[in-house]
Amino acid sequence: MKSTEDKRFIIEKKSGYNSIIGRLLSMMDYTRMTTLEAVNNLTAKELDYRIDVKGNSIGCLLYHMACVEEVYQIITFEERDPTDKELQKLEVGLNLGEKAHQIIHNKEIEFYREQLNRVREHTLERFREKEDSWLDEVSPFGPNNVANNYFRWFHVFEDELNHRGQIRLIRQHMKRKQEG
Amino acid sequence: MKSTEDKRFIIEKKSGYNSIIGRLLSMMDYTRMTTLEAVNNLTAKELDYRIDVKGNSIGCLLYHMACVEEVYQIITFEERDPTDKELQKLEVGLNLGEKAHQIIHNKEIEFYREQLNRVREHTLERFREKEDSWLDEVSPFGPNNVANNYFRWFHVFEDELNHRGQIRLIRQHMKRKQEG
Repeated sequence: MKSTEDKRFIIEKKSGYNSIIGRLLSMMDYTRMTTLEAVNNLTAKELDYRIDVKGNSIGCLLYHMACVEEVYQIITFEERDPTDKELQKLEVGLNLGEKAHQIIHNKEIEFYREQLNRVREHTLERFREKEDSWLDEVSPFGPNNVANNYFRWFHVFEDELNHRGQIRLIRQHMKRKQEG
Repeated sequence: MKSTEDKRFIIEKKSGYNSIIGRLLSMMDYTRMTTLEAVNNLTAKELDYRIDVKGNSIGCLLYHMACVEEVYQIITFEERDPTDKELQKLEVGLNLGEKAHQIIHNKEIEFYREQLNRVREHTLERFREKEDSWLDEVSPFGPNNVANNYFRWFHVFEDELNHRGQIRLIRQHMKRKQEG
């Protein structure tokens, strides 16, 4: 455990992965660690809390993170758009909003943690097979743009960091309300 | 302009910089672009808005981003801790909270944009002189940890992304209030 802790603030290549992929993964790991720290010890009820009973709950944001990672797995590893069936499964988490809150609630932290871990495991497995040059492959991104695979995986963690910030804010708001 | 737009979703090395530094900068650029998009067209009054008149305003978060970058310039380029005088200047922005809101308010967006640009210009200038190996240099980080320079600059943009997420949330909250 000590040696992991020692590496907490080191972003570098990782054994078992190509050099640039390893460094990217190092940033994804740090991001995930801080996300999980931000939701530590929250109850199911707290995970459902929303500011003024509007916007996203912390639980929905965690669910969203896993769905974003899953859709980018399909796009970059399978090199295709998600099928209608896959989209049907993922769209609640991808789009968030009122509908997501109605479906994703009353879950313990373990539900979200397991979903995040399961999806990440698959990312690690596929990253192991990839060469760094794969990150620079460019393909269409929406109807009018192009993106490379490095951007897509940067986007997975930059979106998570964006929502980690929101989680911290929602949690502070909840704490102020709880303290009256 | 078109060619910049074409590169929006490409994270790659940059001409004039070492390879790994360029890719890092590419992520910092994307982050900054989305931060500025998130605050586009806000008035001075809107930049001072706080949820329930508590927590941070969008203006304070922008000010914070520039101060964070400035302190990491001192730590990584000057290879020293900030002096008392420097800390005195930066601590309001670094620590945020009620005091920051009392001091940093009633400013137009240009105030924040110029501060962010000025600080970033200096980062670009110093990055141009650095070799990639500099990113892997490890030194103390707080009393009990170590960090490498890659982590420190990753932290500059990961903290910005965290707060960009909060800015988006605060702005949505303000919009709902404005709409009644």
